[in-house]
Amino acid sequence: MLSKNEQKQIRLLGQKKHRSKLGFFIAEGEKIVQELVQEDFELDTIFSSKEIDFAPYRLIDQETLNKVSHLKAASSILAIFKIPGIISTEQVSDSFSLALDSVSDPGNLGTIIRLCDWFGIKNIFCSPDTVDCYNPKVIQSTMGSIARVKCHYVDLKNLIEQSKVPVYGATLDGSSHYDLSFGKKGILVMGSESHGISAQLLEKINQRVTIPANLPGKHAESLNVATATAILLAEISRP
Amino acid sequence: MLSKNEQKQIRLLGQKKHRSKLGFFIAEGEKIVQELVQEDFELDTIFSSKEIDFAPYRLIDQETLNKVSHLKAASSILAIFKIPGIISTEQVSDSFSLALDSVSDPGNLGTIIRLCDWFGIKNIFCSPDTVDCYNPKVIQSTMGSIARVKCHYVDLKNLIEQSKVPVYGATLDGSSHYDLSFGKKGILVMGSESHGISAQLLEKINQRVTIPANLPGKHAESLNVATATAILLAEISRP
Repeated sequence: MLSKNEQKQIRLLGQKKHRSKLGFFIAEGEKIVQELVQEDFELDTIFSSKEIDFAPYRLIDQETLNKVSHLKAASSILAIFKIPGIISTEQVSDSFSLALDSVSDPGNLGTIIRLCDWFGIKNIFCSPDTVDCYNPKVIQSTMGSIARVKCHYVDLKNLIEQSKVPVYGATLDGSSHYDLSFGKKGILVMGSESHGISAQLLEKINQRVTIPANLPGKHAESLNVATATAILLAEISRP
Repeated sequence: MLSKNEQKQIRLLGQKKHRSKLGFFIAEGEKIVQELVQEDFELDTIFSSKEIDFAPYRLIDQETLNKVSHLKAASSILAIFKIPGIISTEQVSDSFSLALDSVSDPGNLGTIIRLCDWFGIKNIFCSPDTVDCYNPKVIQSTMGSIARVKCHYVDLKNLIEQSKVPVYGATLDGSSHYDLSFGKKGILVMGSESHGISAQLLEKINQRVTIPANLPGKHAESLNVATATAILLAEISRP
């Protein structure tokens, strides 16, 4: 059984302000909870409606889980983890990182985190108005990759100004990504779904990069931010 | 005003069986409706709560639109179009096409249609159990690209067996996509979100292709089908 208080806490953790205040986030589903445990995320409690063997848990009935779940279809496991502390940006300058300017869709951020995990990008710098990576929908769509990729909410203008590595920005008017050779160190900036990279960041960016459309005629006006990120990260990772 | 019958028809067109029976689909939002009109999709009726100048329309109040909309947030325009006829697969063998095996998520299909539009892929062959491209959620997430990219629901096994062009399939055990050189003609087969390409299709495929993960250690188990399609289409389109 869950106490009224516990139910309330789980519900509140669906909102960013309460996550920030309480310092915890929710993960649902066996695979992702297991991956977070394996990657040494600090576990508060696992609630499960069936036996599991990878961590201590509290058995509760599925009906209660359905009631408190943040998903459309509740899983058999819901866990509360501590939000990890922030690492210094100094530690990450010797690799490639991603920066997201005002990306607002939870599914897009989740997909991008999963992409970063695939391509070995360990750190994502997010503008403060980018959707919270501990949003239950983001956690869910990372498919477990949130356990290995860290999101840092920082002032991107400062980050870019102080960067010692080349800064690339995805725009519609840059050099073709087929023609650029990306080094081993850098930051790739991706803009918001509707407005691209903000003007104040654009002027700080060393190199604009564009994924050229294949036909001179009428075509899609832009690519979805997650698919554009996919294409650019694959190019950056080209051996 | 909308008659009770019209309201019912719009509601029914949310379901595939009724779309097939009636031969119509719904598009919502000014941009996409305008693009469909421009690309000569056969228009039945546009219902709009504000003036438009690109096609004849019936003025109705927003409250009614909200009631019949298939979207979470209704737009000011909803239109009924005729589902276009099917072209012969013979016509498309001199270019690159995409084939989707059991892709079930409407957002993924919409994103893939938008990608094809960007990269000049005109035809997508879908297994009969792939989500219907005239599903309102698919239409919405194509951002207008459904006007230029055609989906054909066919037996993929037949299509592959009869193909005169090379057939590539995205798997986790193929040749690196960085090492392959794709020609100007071919079919790229992408599998379902959860099971990949079905066994009966896999054995018919000439060339398996894989997007290599960047780290030897633990990483995401797979990529989302839309992001994997993005990466492979960008590679196929490399000048």
